[in-house]
Amino acid sequence: MSLAKDLVRRIRDVIGTQEDFVPLHVPEFNGRERELILDCIDTGWVSSVGSYVEKFEIEVARWSGCTHGVVVANGTAALQISLIVAGVKSGDEVLMPALTFVATANATTHVGAVPHFIDSAYDTLGICPMKLRAHLEQVAEVRDKQTWNRHTGRRIAAVVPMHVFGCPVEMDEVNAVVSDWPMVVVEDAAESLGSRYKERLCGSLGDIAAISFNGNKIITTGGGGAIVTDDAELAMRAKHLTTTAKLPHEWAFVHDEVGFNYRLPNLNAALGVAQLEQLDARLDQKRELFFAYEKAFQEVKGVQLLRAPDGSVSNNWLVTLIIDRAYSGERDHLLQVLNEEGIMTRPVWTPMHRLDMYMKNPRADLSSAEDLETRVLNIPSSAYLGIRGRAAL
Amino acid sequence: MSLAKDLVRRIRDVIGTQEDFVPLHVPEFNGRERELILDCIDTGWVSSVGSYVEKFEIEVARWSGCTHGVVVANGTAALQISLIVAGVKSGDEVLMPALTFVATANATTHVGAVPHFIDSAYDTLGICPMKLRAHLEQVAEVRDKQTWNRHTGRRIAAVVPMHVFGCPVEMDEVNAVVSDWPMVVVEDAAESLGSRYKERLCGSLGDIAAISFNGNKIITTGGGGAIVTDDAELAMRAKHLTTTAKLPHEWAFVHDEVGFNYRLPNLNAALGVAQLEQLDARLDQKRELFFAYEKAFQEVKGVQLLRAPDGSVSNNWLVTLIIDRAYSGERDHLLQVLNEEGIMTRPVWTPMHRLDMYMKNPRADLSSAEDLETRVLNIPSSAYLGIRGRAAL
Repeated sequence: MSLAKDLVRRIRDVIGTQEDFVPLHVPEFNGRERELILDCIDTGWVSSVGSYVEKFEIEVARWSGCTHGVVVANGTAALQISLIVAGVKSGDEVLMPALTFVATANATTHVGAVPHFIDSAYDTLGICPMKLRAHLEQVAEVRDKQTWNRHTGRRIAAVVPMHVFGCPVEMDEVNAVVSDWPMVVVEDAAESLGSRYKERLCGSLGDIAAISFNGNKIITTGGGGAIVTDDAELAMRAKHLTTTAKLPHEWAFVHDEVGFNYRLPNLNAALGVAQLEQLDARLDQKRELFFAYEKAFQEVKGVQLLRAPDGSVSNNWLVTLIIDRAYSGERDHLLQVLNEEGIMTRPVWTPMHRLDMYMKNPRADLSSAEDLETRVLNIPSSAYLGIRGRAAL
Repeated sequence: MSLAKDLVRRIRDVIGTQEDFVPLHVPEFNGRERELILDCIDTGWVSSVGSYVEKFEIEVARWSGCTHGVVVANGTAALQISLIVAGVKSGDEVLMPALTFVATANATTHVGAVPHFIDSAYDTLGICPMKLRAHLEQVAEVRDKQTWNRHTGRRIAAVVPMHVFGCPVEMDEVNAVVSDWPMVVVEDAAESLGSRYKERLCGSLGDIAAISFNGNKIITTGGGGAIVTDDAELAMRAKHLTTTAKLPHEWAFVHDEVGFNYRLPNLNAALGVAQLEQLDARLDQKRELFFAYEKAFQEVKGVQLLRAPDGSVSNNWLVTLIIDRAYSGERDHLLQVLNEEGIMTRPVWTPMHRLDMYMKNPRADLSSAEDLETRVLNIPSSAYLGIRGRAAL
């Protein structure tokens, strides 16, 4: 049997044959969504102030293992503001994986900073701490307790580990690099709400973190994001900056710096509150789906399922197949066949250094990212499929 | 009777005494809001793609007298992207009234451009075309069909007329200035959805315009905004830029420039579609409220009601009182008394050149803006008050 046909059969064994077309990941509304959004309409509190904004901030912080949460319009805004309040300035460089969604690089560019690309680790698909260290040893130096790029003359102000598809980065090792090369750690936790690294929740593993609630994520607010941190001062400044930097006053309009309008409407926060109430159950369902896929792919030749390293627990946002090198030339054929068979499948992102606007950016050796680009596929991962997956076990 | 007590009596005559506290402007949901947002939940289409996004874009364009609409996360984002697609570059100057909400200046700053402040006209509270021309004659010159600031050496790329509280700027006169001093006209129509200038809708009076649907506006999406224009190319580029600049492809992630994540979720667009269906009725109610206030203030000494000049029709977003110069020292006292009496009242914004971050920006003589700052008040203006207003007539 061809690899493509074999994959179709194994995936259909897990997700069932009820539908001709199974999407990659759909939002699910099985809780109080309807009740809470109608409450916004009935009370008139739909906009940027409202009780659900505050509730959602508290719950998102809790779900990230942090003391403070600031909810915003989307994950890109969350990352941009996280970088700013963490001290990244225009003209600084920010280290990040080349293999990430474009928002990581764009948020950095919106700050006026320069994305500097690092290679990926095969075991997590996230930034590789070993290669990060080796690259810094080659290009950087520490002066005045800050890290500088000797080639560009720019300060390297931050590293942004991104937990790819929910699989946690080896954060102890990233933090060990940072203890030798001083910079802030801004987690891009857009995809990893509920994931854990050594018992600690993603979002609490650096100085500050950005989360996304876009429609394709594990929970959604339609569009939305959050900044989470244990640092009360960073959180206060993030709240101030994202709400037009207005000073509190009974009636006067005084703003004390150039702020942003990145508020999350109460309507969307209400959706988020209802969705977060289901996150525990959803994590269970997605775990069961993963186990079912794991069993189905046990004996397969040609692909492996990505599994979080020991000590890490992925939220299993998107189930990930890695094609063996021998078959890497078949990626597009596999995408074609799987999608034609109604099994929505997507490749990993084009690495940042291969996009027009980031081609000339500073970068390390990126051979793993380039290799992985030809070998990574995501297959249907919606939580509801977990119920079918359990039946298939 | 003191002016404060007289104002309280006259306003209460219009808005009634049913509530102890009457807010400045509340959203109202009297149409299909509940039906349409539940449809988003039931179908799962809550996020950045969905039929309400497209419907809302078509309807917003129609309500602005334009052929194209692109809906986005909020009015600030709409203005930032409007400036970019209209050709404003980092380092350019952008002319705007000093008397505006801070978003006008912030959106410009987010582009990397420099706000350059112009004085206001007493008859509209918007940018004064005569003072605009006089200032350009003093500081600018035309070279290669572009306008340059002789003092700063920067290009003056755009003018942003903002229709204050819904009252249209004298746009024929602004456009006449621009025919002598080449630059693009980007309308800040955040507050003026449904307002008309010489039979033409606000939003269709320049090259491109930005609209806001924040919770306090005449209609709301919770948070949201729109870019409207008759230029298909500008609209296409605005859509591309606000949706991460991703190229269409079955599965590949290729983005061809540094884009933004400024998408309006389908959930919020659904709210907008339902709200727009009521805009006609709301404009009627607000007009009736204005007439009731006009009658109530006919004989008053010490304040005047702002009325749009002949040929212009305001959407009456916020009803505006202008305190006579003799009483301008009493502004804070009036604010205090009116708010204490449960009549929510606010002053106009602090002019931009008096905020810390814009103090050193280029500017014209701003004596009218400074004078108006001490004399402008907004009083309760919600559409539902129009029904009471009609009864009071």
